[in-house]
Amino acid sequence: MRDFIYEIPVKVYFGREQFGHLGQELSRHGKKVLLIYGGGSIKRTGLYDKVVSEIEKADLKLYEYSGIEPNPRIDSVRKGAQLCKEEHIDVLLAVGGGSTIDAAKYMAAAACADCDPWDFLEKKAPVKEALPIVTILTLAATGSEMDACGVISNPETHDKIVGMSPKLFPKASFLDPTNTYTVSAYQTACGAADIMSHVIETYFNMEDGLYMLDCFMEGLMQTVVKFAPVALRDPENYEARANLMWASSWAINGFISGGRSHLWSCHPIEHELSAIYDITHGLGLAILTPRWMEYCLNERTVSKYYQFGTRVFGIDASLEPMTVARKSIELLSEFFFKTLGLKSTFTEVGIQKKDFAHMAQKACEGDVLQSGLGPLKQEDIEKIFEMCL
Amino acid sequence: MRDFIYEIPVKVYFGREQFGHLGQELSRHGKKVLLIYGGGSIKRTGLYDKVVSEIEKADLKLYEYSGIEPNPRIDSVRKGAQLCKEEHIDVLLAVGGGSTIDAAKYMAAAACADCDPWDFLEKKAPVKEALPIVTILTLAATGSEMDACGVISNPETHDKIVGMSPKLFPKASFLDPTNTYTVSAYQTACGAADIMSHVIETYFNMEDGLYMLDCFMEGLMQTVVKFAPVALRDPENYEARANLMWASSWAINGFISGGRSHLWSCHPIEHELSAIYDITHGLGLAILTPRWMEYCLNERTVSKYYQFGTRVFGIDASLEPMTVARKSIELLSEFFFKTLGLKSTFTEVGIQKKDFAHMAQKACEGDVLQSGLGPLKQEDIEKIFEMCL
Repeated sequence: MRDFIYEIPVKVYFGREQFGHLGQELSRHGKKVLLIYGGGSIKRTGLYDKVVSEIEKADLKLYEYSGIEPNPRIDSVRKGAQLCKEEHIDVLLAVGGGSTIDAAKYMAAAACADCDPWDFLEKKAPVKEALPIVTILTLAATGSEMDACGVISNPETHDKIVGMSPKLFPKASFLDPTNTYTVSAYQTACGAADIMSHVIETYFNMEDGLYMLDCFMEGLMQTVVKFAPVALRDPENYEARANLMWASSWAINGFISGGRSHLWSCHPIEHELSAIYDITHGLGLAILTPRWMEYCLNERTVSKYYQFGTRVFGIDASLEPMTVARKSIELLSEFFFKTLGLKSTFTEVGIQKKDFAHMAQKACEGDVLQSGLGPLKQEDIEKIFEMCL
Repeated sequence: MRDFIYEIPVKVYFGREQFGHLGQELSRHGKKVLLIYGGGSIKRTGLYDKVVSEIEKADLKLYEYSGIEPNPRIDSVRKGAQLCKEEHIDVLLAVGGGSTIDAAKYMAAAACADCDPWDFLEKKAPVKEALPIVTILTLAATGSEMDACGVISNPETHDKIVGMSPKLFPKASFLDPTNTYTVSAYQTACGAADIMSHVIETYFNMEDGLYMLDCFMEGLMQTVVKFAPVALRDPENYEARANLMWASSWAINGFISGGRSHLWSCHPIEHELSAIYDITHGLGLAILTPRWMEYCLNERTVSKYYQFGTRVFGIDASLEPMTVARKSIELLSEFFFKTLGLKSTFTEVGIQKKDFAHMAQKACEGDVLQSGLGPLKQEDIEKIFEMCL
């Protein structure tokens, strides 16, 4: 078991009636607030008006940057950071899902630095300072509301890179499950797949870890399996939206990986898919994950699949471990592709064989694929891609 | 489901090789360190020398206050706070279990105030400021290393009162499981009972809450049930000590109660026992908890016992809920009194019937017994006491 440091300084306001704290949370950091959001759905839902009203009530000065893309682009980060510098912004308020929050994080870092923001991602330039960030979450998926990471895309170079720094933790996040009532069935499904994948990446790790955290991960996965279908059937079910929302934060805020390596497998591979094809992250993960599990199943790894199958899906514990393992992959596939209704193959989403070698080669850069269920080389990833066709 | 605010700003260094961070953590807060500890077991184990050496290496000035009692007394708090004021202490370093850390918390508060420290407890005087606290945990039990609470006793008035304030969160806590290798079997057992009870108090609550947190609580309880016997059998088992240690923090740091009321039942009752009899807190809880569960079992509450029995103890889910419920109480009693080897009755620990009315009456002060499995009045508590004889 590895030593670890636990530190999650984010304050979370969870529930329906927490909005009244927004002005006070922003005011802690200054007067000039940059409101950052995406394509404008927050105007249709009325959330925009509520936010503006709270900002006015608190006598703060409002600036705006909208149009953050899904798979947010480095150019948006550059422009937002420029605006922060020009207007001497004090605090960033990101309203949206992971893309908006991730973009805000690197705007906040770039606003306090002289380098190009892409240097934080590509060259791993350390984030020495960042403007404070407050978030209002509208999509349960990436967990960016409670972690120190951000993923930014560079369409020019077809790169999609994850960065992290303790300076990027939001100061406060507002998690009101009713703000996800209007999330489409497709995005709800992709979000659920994303949460599930964050847990699976950490859970399927052959290092000795804390049993207590395995139990918690199993609970998170059971939660997603139980409530994602409820949210799809009944989008305004508070209990379902609340469970998915809090699970999204805890699946990736760092708690569950205590004692084990933080290295993941499917995420770095998926980033290469969405860097070229711009598909939704959760969808790419759903297609990849069961194939990766199938590819990595062997005598050395089977015990973890057995634990997963019996404890998350309730498969009969008296069956042979290998039988349980295969059954668990089937049930996970069924969850992604039948229950959540996500497309199940590369062919359906237009990912082509001609890019396999290139994407697999890029995914292998660095040492990220050395851990988890076992080391993966370029040829392994290409084989996993073949299984996804 | 209630709204809630989540905020746990404690930094935790977990593992065997984290000690090197101690000097740096203390130095953040100043030069003058008050080392607080109990009866001197840390000198026998060598931990004292290690701590002093780190403090010297970091060029800090060391002061000491030792002799904190189990069920720490307000008089120790007064003396420690006085020393902080006289010597202009910058930071408190509590090395020990919950008693030492709780005492340090109220020393830290009283050092920044003019009132008598007992006012924080008895009169609920707000803690406006407190000196920073760093802890090194040597006993997995109370969770004080990661929460904002402290329990202080006043032997003159036979009061034992819990207080809390966000100002009392330790800044950093060092959790090295090897520091609990020398904990006696009896204290290991009492600690396990304490952790178990913290979870049970939160879990047995008939309000609608987050399913995800129920799963996590079940995981915490499974962890204690699995590893407490291992730690008793094999005191230097790292995995067992690590799981118990991290479980102790998460059983009470506030995370698991998100969405439900924080009101507890057995703890306020037990505090009346140990206020008069000075028994170990975990032992009192172990004796009380199964009787409280038995007393509160009815048609309205049975579903929670059923969930507990099937998911924590693996009782056959096809049995009648009431049968599962009774069986779950039996298994919990067996865990406390056979597996952990704790005494099972008031008679064995010398608690006498003549004090029942008085203790029950005091436990009912305030509204703390209105929640959980249902409201309890003085006569209910007296009946629970009778069951403990």
